[in-house]
Amino acid sequence: MKTDNILLDHGSGGKISHSLITDIMLPIFNNPILSQLNDGAIFDIEGKRLAFSTDTYVVDPIFFPGGNIGTLSINGTVNDIAMCGATPLFLSAGLIIEEGFSLADLKTILQEMSIAAEKAGVKVVTGDTKVVPKGAADKIFINTSGIGIIPKNIDIASHRALPGDKIILSGSIADHGITILTQREGMTFDSSVASDTAPLNHMVKNMLSVCKNIHVLRDPTRGGIGTALNEIAIKSEIGIKIYEEKIPVKNEVAAICELLGFDPVYIANEGNLLAFVPPDHAEKVLDVIRENRFGREACIIGEVVEDNPRKVFMQTRIGGTRIVDMLTGEQLPRIC
Amino acid sequence: MKTDNILLDHGSGGKISHSLITDIMLPIFNNPILSQLNDGAIFDIEGKRLAFSTDTYVVDPIFFPGGNIGTLSINGTVNDIAMCGATPLFLSAGLIIEEGFSLADLKTILQEMSIAAEKAGVKVVTGDTKVVPKGAADKIFINTSGIGIIPKNIDIASHRALPGDKIILSGSIADHGITILTQREGMTFDSSVASDTAPLNHMVKNMLSVCKNIHVLRDPTRGGIGTALNEIAIKSEIGIKIYEEKIPVKNEVAAICELLGFDPVYIANEGNLLAFVPPDHAEKVLDVIRENRFGREACIIGEVVEDNPRKVFMQTRIGGTRIVDMLTGEQLPRIC
Repeated sequence: MKTDNILLDHGSGGKISHSLITDIMLPIFNNPILSQLNDGAIFDIEGKRLAFSTDTYVVDPIFFPGGNIGTLSINGTVNDIAMCGATPLFLSAGLIIEEGFSLADLKTILQEMSIAAEKAGVKVVTGDTKVVPKGAADKIFINTSGIGIIPKNIDIASHRALPGDKIILSGSIADHGITILTQREGMTFDSSVASDTAPLNHMVKNMLSVCKNIHVLRDPTRGGIGTALNEIAIKSEIGIKIYEEKIPVKNEVAAICELLGFDPVYIANEGNLLAFVPPDHAEKVLDVIRENRFGREACIIGEVVEDNPRKVFMQTRIGGTRIVDMLTGEQLPRIC
Repeated sequence: MKTDNILLDHGSGGKISHSLITDIMLPIFNNPILSQLNDGAIFDIEGKRLAFSTDTYVVDPIFFPGGNIGTLSINGTVNDIAMCGATPLFLSAGLIIEEGFSLADLKTILQEMSIAAEKAGVKVVTGDTKVVPKGAADKIFINTSGIGIIPKNIDIASHRALPGDKIILSGSIADHGITILTQREGMTFDSSVASDTAPLNHMVKNMLSVCKNIHVLRDPTRGGIGTALNEIAIKSEIGIKIYEEKIPVKNEVAAICELLGFDPVYIANEGNLLAFVPPDHAEKVLDVIRENRFGREACIIGEVVEDNPRKVFMQTRIGGTRIVDMLTGEQLPRIC
């Protein structure tokens, strides 16, 4: 699509976001660390291997079942760092607050951030607060950036998937996105749909303790598992086959998706991960994921294949096969 | 002031911002690194001493004489890291863009960020882009966070000022704030007022090469040198005496301040620094600052005294003395 202006699609995490990043941003900044396009940057400082990640949270509404912009902003960046195989340690918080925002709500959000940081075992060590005049921002936006340290002999990156790898998904999909959507639209379903926002760093630590050779980790946020798998297929130049019947989707979530015409594979998650693991280690890794409270529904949803490089195929429940393409267009703005 | 809602003052960098941070944020996050309230957090990771800083840029207008939101976002975070005595290495960039924003302007801003990063010798290694619907943000906001490494034997912090220290200011004050103000209000002065935005890390490196024992470094952004000096006086429990006649203010800037009733000591700077240096090293440090292209107007503007701890006094041009209090109220929202 040709356009002279920024569209909501540019922030969707899908095809148009991808082209903004690869066609415009990467050539401008032109450095090999950024070009890796992992969830975080990985680099050495005087022999220590660090992961560094940033994410801005503009979710609307700011409070929702299962969480709020505060918990999301901590868990999201903790997870991005964990997806590099790193132990997250220190976070920053940069707030943009609209004039007139409730001080009580701000306190609640900050307290939720503090609790989330405690649960994840990280510290918020530096911050910045900007207040903009009424109407120049909508309520509150939070940027968190974070630093983690990568243990020796860990090399996790989206280009490292290999044919034969088993693909593990740690939990049911689309919970976060469907929660935000239904809240925002004021839909009242008699359901217990809630965001899955959760810190996954302890899970990752346990996974690495049984298999140092995990090839790829990814938390499928904006764009869902569909977009995440496509990005990995492209970066690793491999094909991916997944099985629809293996992918856990909660009944209520599936029902809402069906009602509204959304495909859950493209809906955002905030508390699950995809892991690409050599086949001989897959069961062991799966076991430790299931021991984690956020990984009880974990299962192997597919594998890496040599055929059809850069493509993701899904075997459907009725036995057919369809391409899972990268998302085009924005389904849900301000989802995180 | 008692209020249930966030005011512009909460983001001013002055007294009310200070109380938001010390009365609300610090108790909630409750950790000793954050509580230091330096320009960046300072901590160890496996024996390496790092500085980590974050800043969000919401400046309006986004393009102005001397710079733009892109250059500002790089230089500002580079400087915050440099003020910890660290060598800045890696930056993140988190963008919030309003739907409909010009793609050409975005490219210009990104290119300016890249050029600024090149000049400062840092790399933008990770990023995030969010697009919000029209009206939910004003044009573009940029968060940058950054990491630097602190050389051995450097201990720079706002609580380290000591009686006898000379206070060096590296350049003329109020250039940035007055530029933004006159641009925003559409004032047309026949003048060459321009933002001073500049990377100060090379200057700091040279300063440390002649004096490892610099006690405090601070770039006086929001709230100007008045607020920065007050913060240092409070943290170090010392008194500060400065001399009005020593403080460089460009003629045009002074004239605009006079016309509009602003005190230049409270106006934001983006390319100068304050250094608290033991008296026997002050001249040497001053010399290397003056060798830097951003430090040609540097001079010693005052000293640390034992009297009147936690207060800043200014000897005025006509020989009187006045207290320079911490700024109360917001003079200029969205200045950076």
